[in-house]
Amino acid sequence: MLSITTPGKASLASLALAATAALPFTAQATTTEARSERGAEMIRHLNNGEAQPNLEAMREEFPFLAEATEAYALGDVWGRDVLDDRTRQLAAVAAMAAMGETGIMRVHAGYALNVGVSEEELKEVIYMITVPAGFTRAITASQALSEVFAEHRSTSRMESSQ
Amino acid sequence: MLSITTPGKASLASLALAATAALPFTAQATTTEARSERGAEMIRHLNNGEAQPNLEAMREEFPFLAEATEAYALGDVWGRDVLDDRTRQLAAVAAMAAMGETGIMRVHAGYALNVGVSEEELKEVIYMITVPAGFTRAITASQALSEVFAEHRSTSRMESSQ
Amino acid sequence: MLSITTPGKASLASLALAATAALPFTAQATTTEARSERGAEMIRHLNNGEAQPNLEAMREEFPFLAEATEAYALGDVWGRDVLDDRTRQLAAVAAMAAMGETGIMRVHAGYALNVGVSEEELKEVIYMITVPAGFTRAITASQALSEVFAEHRSTSRMESSQ
Amino acid sequence: MLSITTPGKASLASLALAATAALPFTAQATTTEARSERGAEMIRHLNNGEAQPNLEAMREEFPFLAEATEAYALGDVWGRDVLDDRTRQLAAVAAMAAMGETGIMRVHAGYALNVGVSEEELKEVIYMITVPAGFTRAITASQALSEVFAEHRSTSRMESSQ
Amino acid sequence: MLSITTPGKASLASLALAATAALPFTAQATTTEARSERGAEMIRHLNNGEAQPNLEAMREEFPFLAEATEAYALGDVWGRDVLDDRTRQLAAVAAMAAMGETGIMRVHAGYALNVGVSEEELKEVIYMITVPAGFTRAITASQALSEVFAEHRSTSRMESSQ
Amino acid sequence: MLSITTPGKASLASLALAATAALPFTAQATTTEARSERGAEMIRHLNNGEAQPNLEAMREEFPFLAEATEAYALGDVWGRDVLDDRTRQLAAVAAMAAMGETGIMRVHAGYALNVGVSEEELKEVIYMITVPAGFTRAITASQALSEVFAEHRSTSRMESSQ
Repeated sequence: MLSITTPGKASLASLALAATAALPFTAQATTTEARSERGAEMIRHLNNGEAQPNLEAMREEFPFLAEATEAYALGDVWGRDVLDDRTRQLAAVAAMAAMGETGIMRVHAGYALNVGVSEEELKEVIYMITVPAGFTRAITASQALSEVFAEHRSTSRMESSQ
Repeated sequence: MLSITTPGKASLASLALAATAALPFTAQATTTEARSERGAEMIRHLNNGEAQPNLEAMREEFPFLAEATEAYALGDVWGRDVLDDRTRQLAAVAAMAAMGETGIMRVHAGYALNVGVSEEELKEVIYMITVPAGFTRAITASQALSEVFAEHRSTSRMESSQ
Repeated sequence: MLSITTPGKASLASLALAATAALPFTAQATTTEARSERGAEMIRHLNNGEAQPNLEAMREEFPFLAEATEAYALGDVWGRDVLDDRTRQLAAVAAMAAMGETGIMRVHAGYALNVGVSEEELKEVIYMITVPAGFTRAITASQALSEVFAEHRSTSRMESSQ
Repeated sequence: MLSITTPGKASLASLALAATAALPFTAQATTTEARSERGAEMIRHLNNGEAQPNLEAMREEFPFLAEATEAYALGDVWGRDVLDDRTRQLAAVAAMAAMGETGIMRVHAGYALNVGVSEEELKEVIYMITVPAGFTRAITASQALSEVFAEHRSTSRMESSQ
Repeated sequence: MLSITTPGKASLASLALAATAALPFTAQATTTEARSERGAEMIRHLNNGEAQPNLEAMREEFPFLAEATEAYALGDVWGRDVLDDRTRQLAAVAAMAAMGETGIMRVHAGYALNVGVSEEELKEVIYMITVPAGFTRAITASQALSEVFAEHRSTSRMESSQ
Repeated sequence: MLSITTPGKASLASLALAATAALPFTAQATTTEARSERGAEMIRHLNNGEAQPNLEAMREEFPFLAEATEAYALGDVWGRDVLDDRTRQLAAVAAMAAMGETGIMRVHAGYALNVGVSEEELKEVIYMITVPAGFTRAITASQALSEVFAEHRSTSRMESSQ
């Protein structure tokens, strides 16, 4: 249903997101195809205009999980508009760090940086996590985040030097 | 931003909180007494100007835990200023819901409402939680939140009718 | 295999379920309305032809969670056909017991009994759970299951005496 | 150290426990009957000479779980002798508090008090738990422990007034 | 210690399993030696007639854990007969995936394939797991399963080409 | 910042620990600087007189987490004196193993060996953990502990050969 061909990803995606604000949920995307398309658009929005490699790798062997991640998780849930991008990413990172799920947390921390969350804000979430989830998971998450920060700075330098 | 009108200590503490924004962490509150005081002020800020009954109940039998909750969790962590009140509360509720810790989550959801988070925003956190933590914990958290909403509306009605 | 006698919609949906066996996933239910309908049918199938009270209670305050539970969890996931009803329910009870989520586990244990899983089979899942998740969660789950068994026998007696 | 005066079986089992110190594990109790007997003796040792009501309640509906708890958990594991009673109980309470399993934790905290662990030592375990598992679970555990303390003091008063 | 020379693993194990069906639990294996023997036989049944390398590696440094895994987990629990092999393995994989324990889950997913569970059925368990445990753990588990599938296909090809 | 030049690590640390025994908690270390100093001393006590590399690595990017770990976790909590070193380490290892947090568990298992806990006692904690947390996490923890034992023996051999 979304036939957008991204000329300038951020601006168009922002428009798309803005456009959903006034619509009731069920009107947003009612077919699996439209929900998947909205999810794919959300991934490009969060991932610098690119597809998510883990998701693409899942498509062949775990097609239902790939489709559900795209249509439900990214399309239905991440496509909602009451919380802004930044708050949703910070809350998602908090939940994943608290569960000890640092693998997927890294992906969402990268998304957070891509939509304008600062490194300082991500660090604050890890500091806060010591209260509900303890120092052990906070320290483990901090080590994963340090690697995300290093990769993101490296990518940003490469892009800005082009 | 702090609209609490309690004079005396509260206003001083509010000043202290406002003043910390430009200070490095170690300068904020360096004695246990000052850290506890800052924690107590934070609780009043989050809890409509009142002490937190669970915390007060802990003081006699678990004095170190009560003091650490006040000085470290509320004073050191919640007293930080990179994240605003609302984002920190939403991320804390996300972490607690993901861990299945609905008891303490109720307290923090109540704090969130007190500092201006809307019911709709708390619901969004629960919707998001289905992705990292599943439907089971999201549904359990939603049932706890419904009770928090009912209590909060009841309290608000009583206050506005006085 | 579906012995539900509710005429009209139920029989149609039963036909739909039967018909999906040879179809690729995306062909099964591609609109949110159809997915929700399939979920509602699945609930009636699992819950003796009745709606699920917890889900109905969620509809007002947590409409997206209610809809996602119905359309995604019950419709998309439980509506799949590679695993039979009984195996899926036993695996779901195992996962919930291992996570310590006895509240929702009770609902699914009840569903399991409704679709022909025996009490003995549910007990075996709890015995097995001592290996991945320990005796603590197994014992807690066993206490919840004892209550489910008692309720189910009471309901069955009432129905058979009518 | 075992001050239980139940004659016959108990004294024999006490002898067996005392005798195991110098024996390799496989020589300790090699039949299911002997392992269960050792577990039953361990329960009486931990529970003021009485059976454990939850375990007895399990025997009818979950006989394998009751037997495994008695023969494996209490007999094989708790019957080992490298750690003393007090250290094992404190470590078990730490693990259960960290997992958020306060129900069974209450039973083991009561056992700990029965074998001479002080309330102060149990409180220290809860304080320590803030580091690996966070304040949320520590506070929840502290509330459960307060109830255990109150019950235990009440029982002790009743016994000493007889 | 194990003197059985498996002439045809599957047939012997099947006989052993079949033989237990009519016996009450306590009659099945009442000495530690017999329980361990039954566990060792179960491992060969699940692991293509071979010992489990992780378990063998534990024997020297963690002898009680190795013995308890063999005698209790594999012998007592996996040796029970109310659930068939396939259902027990699927429920165990569900529990381990829900707990985020992908390391041991890989071992049990391999066992599942060895006793005739299809890749499609294991995938269904992962799809189902999104409901109780979320997409994060389901995706992590799917990545581990992909590696198990690749190893198993490689082993099967080598065997069939001999 | 730390100006202590440990003449004989163990003796100084023992003195420091002994000195705190008679003081009420709030009198022990009431400034952040003193709490951090006490934490740094505790680390040297637990880590053969050396700083903890992970903690030092955190100081640059996660300064609040590094400071809180030092001042609160090591200073305030580990600096308490109701439980002796060995019992606290065993309980901490139990909690971390039960949570599946083997990374930080390795650090604390190493500390335990450094303060005189035997390998046999650590193994007993893992055996005990099968009861509250299951065989899966116990086996995973046993594999991590085997590596800690090997490293510790290697370090001890190097030191004793100098």
